[in-house]
Amino acid sequence: MTFQIKSIETLINEFRKLPGIGPKSARRIVFSLLGQSEKEIKDFAGALIDMKEKVRFCKNCFNLSEEDECPVCKDSSRNRETICIVEKPSDVLVIEGTGEYRGLYHVMGGLLSPIENIGPDELKIPQLIGRISQLNTTEIIIALNPTVEGDSTATYLSKNLKPLGVKITKLASGLPVGGDIEYADQITIGRAISGRREM
Amino acid sequence: MTFQIKSIETLINEFRKLPGIGPKSARRIVFSLLGQSEKEIKDFAGALIDMKEKVRFCKNCFNLSEEDECPVCKDSSRNRETICIVEKPSDVLVIEGTGEYRGLYHVMGGLLSPIENIGPDELKIPQLIGRISQLNTTEIIIALNPTVEGDSTATYLSKNLKPLGVKITKLASGLPVGGDIEYADQITIGRAISGRREM
Repeated sequence: MTFQIKSIETLINEFRKLPGIGPKSARRIVFSLLGQSEKEIKDFAGALIDMKEKVRFCKNCFNLSEEDECPVCKDSSRNRETICIVEKPSDVLVIEGTGEYRGLYHVMGGLLSPIENIGPDELKIPQLIGRISQLNTTEIIIALNPTVEGDSTATYLSKNLKPLGVKITKLASGLPVGGDIEYADQITIGRAISGRREM
Repeated sequence: MTFQIKSIETLINEFRKLPGIGPKSARRIVFSLLGQSEKEIKDFAGALIDMKEKVRFCKNCFNLSEEDECPVCKDSSRNRETICIVEKPSDVLVIEGTGEYRGLYHVMGGLLSPIENIGPDELKIPQLIGRISQLNTTEIIIALNPTVEGDSTATYLSKNLKPLGVKITKLASGLPVGGDIEYADQITIGRAISGRREM
């Protein structure tokens, strides 16, 4: 369905590029924006530009940051002897949301993938090794997705970091809280059994 | 869940204001935007500002337009003797999308509502009456939602426009195409029976 008003059509197309937004949602959003004041629209556009200009990567852990060091690295109350390895910056946000973790992070920016030519250097692994010796890290927590790529990257990390004399753990795999054994897949149940804990 | 990087948090909040976008979608969108180039972000922000600056109401029919007259009013190939009355500009878009209608529109910008103090003047009804006599309109098609407010506005329009000697029709009410009689509500089935057509 084409629309004959060019600036509206252009904006609908911009929204359609975003993840999870289809043609009907995009139209609905644009028509709701048409009802907003000039100030509100300028604030929205300004927030877009502002984010792009300000956000960069932390020089230590490659988390997102508006400064050289991210808020986690700068926080002196955090435990500097533990590093949690995650795939992407949004994972930091999720883990921070739990309030369960008070150590540092290392954001790899991807997972090992020989097909896509992503090797250890692309994943900031040399930098990670540098930090481990500099910080006298005692524990590395591997928090990668429990997928084929995540597991093989975890295995690679474990094999290459163990010689540094650091304890390596990874997130527990098992039934999600609130989940139902009846609907869980066999691999998940298998991992939940092998990783069972004494009560 | 709060995020410690201000410009990202601000942008997530801007997206959360949009219809149909919750906290998780907003975060997902913002993280995907972080991966876009500076040019792409500037194009997006520019499209927002551009739309707000350019779009106004057509002086004839109150449809959205970038000029004094909207593309429908300016199109000399359209049938000028029929006016389709709709509630809002997005309804024009939907009807245009069907390709079934080649006449003009009149966008009321709302429905009659004594509670919200919306009377005939707010709904551009005086302007509609002016257009009917100026254009020698032969048919008015009322395309309002089949709701209580839509139906009472349609009744008001019908009563006030009939004395002008114009034929007044409204959109057929009945089963949606692809729908199932078993799951249709009683009022819809009732209207489908009373509005039945000879085959």
